[in-house]
Amino acid sequence: MSSGKDEKYFKNISHRERAIFEGAITMGALFHQFIGTPVSKESAKALKNAIKESMELQPCIEEVDVRIDFGDSSGLENEYAYVSLTGEMLDVKVVSNYHGKKAVTRMHYIEELKYPLMYVESIY
Amino acid sequence: MSSGKDEKYFKNISHRERAIFEGAITMGALFHQFIGTPVSKESAKALKNAIKESMELQPCIEEVDVRIDFGDSSGLENEYAYVSLTGEMLDVKVVSNYHGKKAVTRMHYIEELKYPLMYVESIY
Amino acid sequence: MSSGKDEKYFKNISHRERAIFEGAITMGALFHQFIGTPVSKESAKALKNAIKESMELQPCIEEVDVRIDFGDSSGLENEYAYVSLTGEMLDVKVVSNYHGKKAVTRMHYIEELKYPLMYVESIY
Amino acid sequence: MSSGKDEKYFKNISHRERAIFEGAITMGALFHQFIGTPVSKESAKALKNAIKESMELQPCIEEVDVRIDFGDSSGLENEYAYVSLTGEMLDVKVVSNYHGKKAVTRMHYIEELKYPLMYVESIY
Repeated sequence: MSSGKDEKYFKNISHRERAIFEGAITMGALFHQFIGTPVSKESAKALKNAIKESMELQPCIEEVDVRIDFGDSSGLENEYAYVSLTGEMLDVKVVSNYHGKKAVTRMHYIEELKYPLMYVESIY
Repeated sequence: MSSGKDEKYFKNISHRERAIFEGAITMGALFHQFIGTPVSKESAKALKNAIKESMELQPCIEEVDVRIDFGDSSGLENEYAYVSLTGEMLDVKVVSNYHGKKAVTRMHYIEELKYPLMYVESIY
Repeated sequence: MSSGKDEKYFKNISHRERAIFEGAITMGALFHQFIGTPVSKESAKALKNAIKESMELQPCIEEVDVRIDFGDSSGLENEYAYVSLTGEMLDVKVVSNYHGKKAVTRMHYIEELKYPLMYVESIY
Repeated sequence: MSSGKDEKYFKNISHRERAIFEGAITMGALFHQFIGTPVSKESAKALKNAIKESMELQPCIEEVDVRIDFGDSSGLENEYAYVSLTGEMLDVKVVSNYHGKKAVTRMHYIEELKYPLMYVESIY
């Protein structure tokens, strides 16, 4: 997307580090933009699609894939049949690419940590 | 969506007031959930669709319609060809209905006020 | 805060209805702006204060009071000692006033509904 | 904050890369959590403080400093004397530290790019 005018701001990091940097920004952005959105099993597809299309606009982002897991769906047994999106429900992959260096950033809930961890799943 | 278990919490307001109340909640929610989302002319359709489907889940909401106006699109002339969604870009209608009383809540930027005003456009 | 230039947009609702309308907007806004924010027992005071001060800026809002309840705090027993703010943790009161008509809008989690309900607690 | 249980998820990146990664997450998070918040000159201090305290909770974050610039303040000349926080108004520094490797991530509006750029200002 960029014509390269921004390159001077990234001279102190490598191509690999830029890929990591941009993947991480997008993962943090995605979480804090969309957590809290009302979602049901019926509306999940539209929400995942909007998350994907909006986050793929960000610099160096090649692909974003989002899964929303309602778990045992007990959260949906409330009076209104929808829930607010939480980090525990999300499983996200962000592929960033800078000059051929690719990072796959992942976020999903990790039982052992009791936390939706963001980490670099692979890089090459 | 509701089976009516919540009705006891709304005894002190009329059906018409409940329609106003729920339309207003959804408008405030919509603005503060989605402002800041990256959006381009290409991704706008997916974002509008997700806003509509998520906000129509809220109590008493019958229909939500969203327009995103890029204006003279000068905002898109940046290095990355997308912008963060702002209140100035939005024109939204929320139709709420409680036991036959309908409110149409509207939000759009009003030049005279220099502000994206939320108001009750019609009620019947 | 307003000099009254916006009054023509509210001719079709009563003063009492305007108070309800503005309280509801602010409650919806508050929820969807701040849900997802990282919060610990130490940072809760600063967060509550910012929520209060920002939401009291909105039209017709006289007072906003926020409580954050960490429950049995089991959510804080994760690896990082903080959680993302959820609707279940919040207990909020918004007092709106339009030409002397006051509405107290409340939101808190209601076990019976399994839902953080927004409703008009009192109006006079 | 972490006891190190999460370290196995970060074996494929260096300490320096981890510092970059965590700084970037927090910058993306900060932007998308707080953009849209109502803010005036009077409330800015409380908002900056809450941003700082909440974002310093995130993994590996040592310090967050936020400036909010109202520019020529023409945005405040509206009917209600406050604005919604935008990326253009923010100047943020995030210091992340992982095992002694420090990254300073910065975001501010850059006229040449017409964009609030996030970049690594220094690393050591």
